[in-house]
Amino acid sequence: MYTLRDILYASSIAVVGASGKPSKMGHKLLNNLIEGGFQGKIYPINPKEPELMGLPCYKSLSDVEGSIDLIVVCVPAAAVAGTLREAGKKGVKGAIIISGGFREIGNDDMEAELLSIAREYGMRIIGPNCQGINYTANQMCATWPVVITQGAIGLVTQSGTIGAEIELRAEAEGIGVTCFAALGNKLDITEVDFINFFVEDPHVKVIALNIEGIAKGSGFQEAVIKAAKKKPVVILKPGRTAKGQVAVASHTKSLAGNDALFSVFCKKYGIIRANDITEMYDCCKLAAMLPCPPNNKLLIMTSSGGSGILATDTADENGVDIMPLSETAKAPLRDSLPSQCVISNPLDLTGDATSERYGDASDIICQYADKLGYGTLLMIYGDPIPGAAEVAQKVKEDGRISLIVSYLGGGSVQAAEVAEMSAAGIPVFPTPERAVKALSHLLDTKIEKEA
Amino acid sequence: MYTLRDILYASSIAVVGASGKPSKMGHKLLNNLIEGGFQGKIYPINPKEPELMGLPCYKSLSDVEGSIDLIVVCVPAAAVAGTLREAGKKGVKGAIIISGGFREIGNDDMEAELLSIAREYGMRIIGPNCQGINYTANQMCATWPVVITQGAIGLVTQSGTIGAEIELRAEAEGIGVTCFAALGNKLDITEVDFINFFVEDPHVKVIALNIEGIAKGSGFQEAVIKAAKKKPVVILKPGRTAKGQVAVASHTKSLAGNDALFSVFCKKYGIIRANDITEMYDCCKLAAMLPCPPNNKLLIMTSSGGSGILATDTADENGVDIMPLSETAKAPLRDSLPSQCVISNPLDLTGDATSERYGDASDIICQYADKLGYGTLLMIYGDPIPGAAEVAQKVKEDGRISLIVSYLGGGSVQAAEVAEMSAAGIPVFPTPERAVKALSHLLDTKIEKEA
Repeated sequence: MYTLRDILYASSIAVVGASGKPSKMGHKLLNNLIEGGFQGKIYPINPKEPELMGLPCYKSLSDVEGSIDLIVVCVPAAAVAGTLREAGKKGVKGAIIISGGFREIGNDDMEAELLSIAREYGMRIIGPNCQGINYTANQMCATWPVVITQGAIGLVTQSGTIGAEIELRAEAEGIGVTCFAALGNKLDITEVDFINFFVEDPHVKVIALNIEGIAKGSGFQEAVIKAAKKKPVVILKPGRTAKGQVAVASHTKSLAGNDALFSVFCKKYGIIRANDITEMYDCCKLAAMLPCPPNNKLLIMTSSGGSGILATDTADENGVDIMPLSETAKAPLRDSLPSQCVISNPLDLTGDATSERYGDASDIICQYADKLGYGTLLMIYGDPIPGAAEVAQKVKEDGRISLIVSYLGGGSVQAAEVAEMSAAGIPVFPTPERAVKALSHLLDTKIEKEA
Repeated sequence: MYTLRDILYASSIAVVGASGKPSKMGHKLLNNLIEGGFQGKIYPINPKEPELMGLPCYKSLSDVEGSIDLIVVCVPAAAVAGTLREAGKKGVKGAIIISGGFREIGNDDMEAELLSIAREYGMRIIGPNCQGINYTANQMCATWPVVITQGAIGLVTQSGTIGAEIELRAEAEGIGVTCFAALGNKLDITEVDFINFFVEDPHVKVIALNIEGIAKGSGFQEAVIKAAKKKPVVILKPGRTAKGQVAVASHTKSLAGNDALFSVFCKKYGIIRANDITEMYDCCKLAAMLPCPPNNKLLIMTSSGGSGILATDTADENGVDIMPLSETAKAPLRDSLPSQCVISNPLDLTGDATSERYGDASDIICQYADKLGYGTLLMIYGDPIPGAAEVAQKVKEDGRISLIVSYLGGGSVQAAEVAEMSAAGIPVFPTPERAVKALSHLLDTKIEKEA
């Protein structure tokens, strides 16, 4: 039997039901494969068109001369079984079935037939009734939207929209994803297959899941328990409230289950439970860019006293330790910084701080990093501070302390500096609270050290 | 004695210590007054320059022939008293003293002298050691950053950075502010003066405060209690935790006070207590754009089932009622919408929903609005949906139900649609959770109806 890997690393793809009409799914899928930069062969299949988007069009799968690894299916439900049979005979390894009209509207038998055809040929199915897959490591955007930046987030999502939002934010910040997968009815391949794949995938540094229910016997719990020992796992699972659970039931006919128990489960195994889309994205971003710091002690360096206090509150509320600054560093900081600076934790460089002052302070922090014992430095830049990115990069390259940045109130200077820092692999958050919240989640993971 | 109004509506301003060097405060302040579009007279004062930024420069205040309403002071601390005396003789009504070097570094006597000079002439002081004021209703940007969009947020902030972040977000979204005020040492004019002014200011629809401590006998509590009966008041007050209170004490030498009591105080008087910068901005934005809906019943309309559930959870957790849809609307909705739509609350228009489908559904909701009894409609647009803005505008114009929008996962289409909606005065949030959270806060206000 073929595997998920055969699908993700397909080198030839046919789009069955490819279309020239922009309103059609078969148009969007063909377009996005091309726009996504897929480097293998792409075969549009449509009996009525000679060519589509500059590619020769084929009447059927059997008309294609070369071999086909993967088909993306956009034909009406009634035609899907026939397509699968033809694909099976052709030696196709996998099918992403975008087409709906199966179990989700009561056509359970039609859906079951698809699985039996697939099993006959060893073919694997994603969907039906799904939004497809973007696997950037193979430049394979068999879904929408088009996101091309290769990153370290492996994402499986129940909701296409929530997944797209995560993916688009990652794209906008230049962080990217490894994978976006929206699995629809999950007839064959499920989250479990993806979780297991992501654990071994060297591109993936964080596993992100948006799920609404956990089917009994699906192996989900075992898979995430195992995964969370290797890589940070972030889960956004709605249905926390009574009304939310009713909505889950009518959305995906799944049971949200006992929410309190699910939280206990996550806590026990070091799985990050995100409360909302913002938190999910923040945790994915941080975990993709920063290995879990060695301890929960945080030093805050800021030009904005008020922002430093907000960071302190958030830390204190979420188990991050704002350990006082030891005398070891206080003396050299006092010598190096202007008298109005508050030599404490938060280390307040005050409102007129330049990037030079940040540089002076962070040089000392790096120099004494081992003695001070902070796992993480949060640099808060308030107001436009040119040169901030350069200082941050130096701290990152020094490597003696994990670095997180928050930049706010800085207008256009900020936009340029943040882009530079993101490109250098430094996680930057728009508010200090979001930075500290994401850190607190990352610290809750229980990654096992390699033997 | 002159008043805060005399400062905010100044028609002639002198910048004392104006400078041609971009690194100087006196450069920034002069530049920003000009760039901010101030329509009155601007007099740069600097004995060494013949002109600055195209304006004739004066050796001293007394050299200016016309009258001067307001001075912005950027000279060293030692020269401020002399400047004030000269201003008093000239009949200046108010002074924004940017210069630091007073009480914040122990020079209490120097600071006290400023007040006695001011009192002698009836002059009012903002600062010293402050970031100044932007009052867009008078196009008077005597501060930084430059923000020119006139809006409905009246903001007083302890932290210049936090205030700037709120202001810059409002500018970026085209929402703007009425006022940004960062008061520094608050020798004379305090938050209380601003709160009282904002209550009567027809431009201000929401009063936003970032404070770190409340001085006893300052009249702060009385002022916000009174204000909160007239307009929504949003307060961001850090120092919630033990470590945060220590940081407050070293930042502004103020006492954060008992945090639990402060929360009780806010709840009792319908004052919105924001937990973080994001929440503060969201509450300001919503209250600036939407009067408090008549009840806490929310109808969710969505193309993204998953997003609808997240909105439902957030509502259920925050006292917003996801009241089931009554049969009155169910029948016409069933007749009008495709069969896969889930006719419930959330009303799930499903993933292939077009703006036409949103239009059909919202027409029915508006038509039956009185019978249905929802105070608010949350329209969630998931994925790119062209034409979304037009539908939203129609609902807003209809006016029978308060409208909030969340748009996510929509890439470049979303950006254009959101800009159009914001320009039309419709509050749009990047996630459904943020939309519902802001609504829940707005519903907690206790505005008294006009007699």
